[in-house]
Amino acid sequence: MLVALLPGDGIGPEVITQARRVLDALAIDGLVFEEALVGGAAYKATGHPLPADTLALAKRADAILFGAVGDPDCDALERHLRPEQAILGLRKELSLFANLRPATLFPELADASALRPEVASQIDMVIVRELNGDVYFGEKGMRKTATGKREGYDIMSYDEDEVRRIARVGFETAMARDKKLCSVDKANVLETSQLWRDVVIETHAEYPEVALSHMYVDNCAMQLVRNPGQFDVIVTGNLFGDILSDQASMCAGSIGMLPSASLDAAQKGLYEPIHGSAPDIAGQGKANPLATILSAAMMLRYSLGLPEQADRIEAAVAKALSGGARSPDLGGTHSTREMGDAVLAALT
Amino acid sequence: MLVALLPGDGIGPEVITQARRVLDALAIDGLVFEEALVGGAAYKATGHPLPADTLALAKRADAILFGAVGDPDCDALERHLRPEQAILGLRKELSLFANLRPATLFPELADASALRPEVASQIDMVIVRELNGDVYFGEKGMRKTATGKREGYDIMSYDEDEVRRIARVGFETAMARDKKLCSVDKANVLETSQLWRDVVIETHAEYPEVALSHMYVDNCAMQLVRNPGQFDVIVTGNLFGDILSDQASMCAGSIGMLPSASLDAAQKGLYEPIHGSAPDIAGQGKANPLATILSAAMMLRYSLGLPEQADRIEAAVAKALSGGARSPDLGGTHSTREMGDAVLAALT
Ligand SMILES: CC(C)[C@H](C(=O)O)[C@@H](O)C(=O)O
Ligand SMILES: CC(C)[C@H](C(=O)O)[C@@H](O)C(=O)O
Repeated sequence: MLVALLPGDGIGPEVITQARRVLDALAIDGLVFEEALVGGAAYKATGHPLPADTLALAKRADAILFGAVGDPDCDALERHLRPEQAILGLRKELSLFANLRPATLFPELADASALRPEVASQIDMVIVRELNGDVYFGEKGMRKTATGKREGYDIMSYDEDEVRRIARVGFETAMARDKKLCSVDKANVLETSQLWRDVVIETHAEYPEVALSHMYVDNCAMQLVRNPGQFDVIVTGNLFGDILSDQASMCAGSIGMLPSASLDAAQKGLYEPIHGSAPDIAGQGKANPLATILSAAMMLRYSLGLPEQADRIEAAVAKALSGGARSPDLGGTHSTREMGDAVLAALT
Repeated sequence: MLVALLPGDGIGPEVITQARRVLDALAIDGLVFEEALVGGAAYKATGHPLPADTLALAKRADAILFGAVGDPDCDALERHLRPEQAILGLRKELSLFANLRPATLFPELADASALRPEVASQIDMVIVRELNGDVYFGEKGMRKTATGKREGYDIMSYDEDEVRRIARVGFETAMARDKKLCSVDKANVLETSQLWRDVVIETHAEYPEVALSHMYVDNCAMQLVRNPGQFDVIVTGNLFGDILSDQASMCAGSIGMLPSASLDAAQKGLYEPIHGSAPDIAGQGKANPLATILSAAMMLRYSLGLPEQADRIEAAVAKALSGGARSPDLGGTHSTREMGDAVLAALT
């Protein structure tokens, strides 16, 4: 089994190093790694954020473990050369349309949430975010208005097939949990959302056991603060999912804790922490590697068929936290490497 | 001075009634009211959510006090007949492009926030939301793809003039406060956001005293939970502002507390609570009228040039809260009318 390691920019390499140590410690038979450049690091070395070699490796691999991309040095580049295009390109080229973002509070971290402990402790949800469409991938550009003014534009759209396949992932995810699905849109304003809502309702017929509800995105952003415990599975589009999943992660303690899986129709996947490259703390050993370590666990479970090994990692993370391992984002002073050490110690 | 009263749907009429009682109690010389139908109520009576008479009254009035629109009975109507089109139509027809949404926690309500009291008590910000452009007003519709599939689409766009005028409102608002402006966009993905960011940076030259920062919308949704006290003024587009301001309101206690002003270039404005029509509790006396009463205060301050009267209302609301007035959203049992009574008692 080949795992592509794509550390990327900022804190990406640091957190990937710790995840690699944990995977190595499991000594899984036949698991091999190959590393490649991606993002700003790839641009600086090769002139492109997603070099052909990197894309080829990602296609060849059984799964991809990804750090983060984003580099302020590259902000002034043309859009197609920016680091973010690497992750957008991988998602699109590999048809990774289903992004699963679990948000759960480790009980050990009840104190780390900005929410009251009694509210935060209720959080146990999965956000299913569509990843191949929406305003992310529509035609976009700069143009001039009739009166010669600069105008930026982006076309938002979904077709029924795109909505149906992600709706099914939402319903399937709900079937494996508490059978409650909340579809989030802005159908009172957007036609894209109206189609989304229509197709989700149609797809519900295939999953009559699931209790389906609909919520406007503004209300959902509010409910995620007011009473996040009400949600089991949320399914939503690319843009709304981007915003809501970051918000939910913070409700659940720290964005430094949450992993994600981006899957294609055959369960091949890219696994990444949901945090970004955090250039402000890069190279200082302050990054929390647990989101990446937990992403490695998701990889073992979903793409590599090794659920017991995934359980072992997750148990080790919980044990490290009970033992007091706390990086700065969790209010402690453990370095990135010390967080890795604590997980390794708990593993053996 | 003519105030147009547009109660609308759901809890709209109940909360407007209480705001009207408070305005009447101030016995302001020359202040007259005229009421008209809007939203689902107008559709049911006249076949249109924003009848010509209502629009004419809104244009003629010096200010508009608006309840809420939204009625599940109307969900299946064609888009141009739905209640929400009334508020969108008013914003557009009257060129109300600048939406000011203050979020502050009344100290009396520290317990009502889902956030820890030490986090919630730091909140003191204004969100400046653009209200006449973005994906709300671009071309939109349903079409068929090349393979005959249904597709929904909406065009997102801003031109430089639209961005500049709202950026100026953001900078002006910051100048009158702590001189900190955070512009929120998604420039790593959207061209509309790239133009937004470019123009905000250009406009900064007019306001060198203001400290300007930029934040991606996903990160902002996270920071509003993690550390909302970091924000002074946020300026953002129509869609992101819709989401972030609802979220911020909940961080500040209850969405039932927060007023808003939607202003044109001459400070004429429409004033409304940021909550919706809440059909589930309509007619039960459970709605919190304080957001509407505080919207009336904003109206006196911004459009009618009566800042002392605005102060009186705000002081009365604070006094009512100290005295223990709590509607169900604030964890109490006061009815809508009793909340109004408490403000009236505090006023005299
Ligand atoms: C880096 C950026 C393009 C990306 C996105 O918006 O999807 C990130 O925020 C994410 O959520 O993975
Ligand atoms: C009712 C709806 C169209 C409206 C909006 O999205 O602007 C509302 O959510 C608001 O924020 O005033």
